[in-house]
Amino acid sequence: MTLVLNDDDVARLVTMAECIDVVEAAYRDLGLGLAVNAPRRDTFLPSSRPEAYYSFKTIEGGLERLGVMAQRINSDLITYPAVDGVRRRVKVPNAPGGRYVGLVFLYSTDTLELLAIITDGHLQRLRVAATTAVGARYLARPDARTLALFGSGWQAEAAAWAIAAVRPLERIRIFSPTPEHRASLARRLDGHLAARVMASSTPEEALGGADIIATATNAQQPVVLGAGVAAGTHLTCITTLEFDDEAWRRCGVIVTSSPPGGYENYRSGGLAVREVLSDRDRRDGAEAGRFELYRDKIHLLSDLLVERAPGRTDPGQITLLDKSWGLGIEFAAVGKLVYDRAQAAGAGHQLPGDWFTQVSHP
Amino acid sequence: MTLVLNDDDVARLVTMAECIDVVEAAYRDLGLGLAVNAPRRDTFLPSSRPEAYYSFKTIEGGLERLGVMAQRINSDLITYPAVDGVRRRVKVPNAPGGRYVGLVFLYSTDTLELLAIITDGHLQRLRVAATTAVGARYLARPDARTLALFGSGWQAEAAAWAIAAVRPLERIRIFSPTPEHRASLARRLDGHLAARVMASSTPEEALGGADIIATATNAQQPVVLGAGVAAGTHLTCITTLEFDDEAWRRCGVIVTSSPPGGYENYRSGGLAVREVLSDRDRRDGAEAGRFELYRDKIHLLSDLLVERAPGRTDPGQITLLDKSWGLGIEFAAVGKLVYDRAQAAGAGHQLPGDWFTQVSHP
Repeated sequence: MTLVLNDDDVARLVTMAECIDVVEAAYRDLGLGLAVNAPRRDTFLPSSRPEAYYSFKTIEGGLERLGVMAQRINSDLITYPAVDGVRRRVKVPNAPGGRYVGLVFLYSTDTLELLAIITDGHLQRLRVAATTAVGARYLARPDARTLALFGSGWQAEAAAWAIAAVRPLERIRIFSPTPEHRASLARRLDGHLAARVMASSTPEEALGGADIIATATNAQQPVVLGAGVAAGTHLTCITTLEFDDEAWRRCGVIVTSSPPGGYENYRSGGLAVREVLSDRDRRDGAEAGRFELYRDKIHLLSDLLVERAPGRTDPGQITLLDKSWGLGIEFAAVGKLVYDRAQAAGAGHQLPGDWFTQVSHP
Repeated sequence: MTLVLNDDDVARLVTMAECIDVVEAAYRDLGLGLAVNAPRRDTFLPSSRPEAYYSFKTIEGGLERLGVMAQRINSDLITYPAVDGVRRRVKVPNAPGGRYVGLVFLYSTDTLELLAIITDGHLQRLRVAATTAVGARYLARPDARTLALFGSGWQAEAAAWAIAAVRPLERIRIFSPTPEHRASLARRLDGHLAARVMASSTPEEALGGADIIATATNAQQPVVLGAGVAAGTHLTCITTLEFDDEAWRRCGVIVTSSPPGGYENYRSGGLAVREVLSDRDRRDGAEAGRFELYRDKIHLLSDLLVERAPGRTDPGQITLLDKSWGLGIEFAAVGKLVYDRAQAAGAGHQLPGDWFTQVSHP
């Protein structure tokens, strides 16, 4: 049997706290040599819209302990418009009904079967935020109570939930450039978390007294300046360049889910949007340069979890969790949890397993 | 709407001759810079069987002209037993009911949707054999009438059909080590092709008078020796080492669907079958060495089709089409043909498209 599950199924079947635990276990497996990841790979084709291009993104990973291999794909139309003076990478919902296409395929390494096809919208947020939380669990000061959150999208919301699951937050201050967006997220979170959640009208206001600073934006340039970061703060970002170089310089220890590099892309020759793609290349180069510059204090999250790398050694240290590059094992871990729960609950669309297997030797 | 199609659907919906034409057009697109391929990538995990390992294989490609991106995956259990003294790579049908798992996912680069999921068994044979036929169409002598076929599996059968579609064959002689297998394939083909088809009891008998020699085996060592190849013969193989070094040395021109290299693999640290994997590595190294040795006379099929590379220049020349490394565009071309036919015929299982799309930004 092959299950087809959607975002609502995922939201109903698993909690953020459970996702944090399975993602932590997956990174520990990786540290123990019991997991495999294949780096992200993008394939680009021109689109019929001159300002946009088609992007097919894949990422894969498997876990020995759970006996699963996961592959996540995104079939996207990409543009890079300037929003509030900042260039952003924006996916266009070009599927029928104004929808997006991202899917997680989960396979059994034992029976080989396609166990499930899961839309990746909610699962994606869970796995990114869960990794952020694993970092905060091991790197933030135990007495951290105040979170400054930059960004007001769904990923920012998930980051707040996730960090609140590993530290008993009392205050969350949110900054994002659009007042309605930050106010709206503050209202949503305020009713559901124990912390008091407020929108801040300036970045400086959000940063005041913060023990943890989380960025979850799609900005292509720094949103937090290191000069404004207090000693002892834990920083956590989803793209390397959200914190400026000064922030990285001031860190005592930097932990990354995965270093840049290993990323591959392939382009069809007819691609008419070279300018946009070279912008992407410049960003990739900037990230790699940052990692090279600070390599002596950068460690892998998987090493931290098996005590091969140091965590925070001093309450005054600034620490950073960089969650720029995803790993397939995050999808394997959360995907398997979702699948097990769906099986137990009889959730999703159940398709005959033999639709996706064959007698012929492929 | 997303279609789920199986091997029977594929066999009913498209002919070999049609597949040859769409594969030729795809390679021409590649030569014109209107296509993209991402190299094959394998990810390995240990299996619960000590003599076997789990392999997750992906290959991707897209075509601008058709507006599709295809991804083919194989979820396999692999062993390397010795059969008739020759080590072979054997997939174990470990899915429920003793079945295999290989799937082609076809996406629209315009609407982004998952258009179809197609089992890859028959489609795989069609795309490999179609590429073999494109090579024979441009490299075999126009008066070629006799085919020597090494191998008796489904891929060998498809090669016979494909070559018969581009040259009016009069005789096919089949050799494979097991007498029943070669006799069985000869009987099957004899009734369906215009050519007279016979099993040969020795490789030498099969080679007698051959204008085209095709190998379609899973042997890990040479099955045809160059010393026995007559001037003017066209050779075609599906793994580089099926013809020995002398055969490659004697060729006037060698055309490859894709050179080795670019192939990547990733392994979980707990893998207990290192010996088997290093055997695979040795083979990969041998293939790369062969290509390096003869690089001055090796050209790309995509270049041949846009007249950037030479084909046969002399009736006495020995020519070779090496089809060792598949390209994603083969799946894109044949997959799109199957999909269009299925749409027109109302074939397959039709699933709601919104099962595989989402409102949330992934």
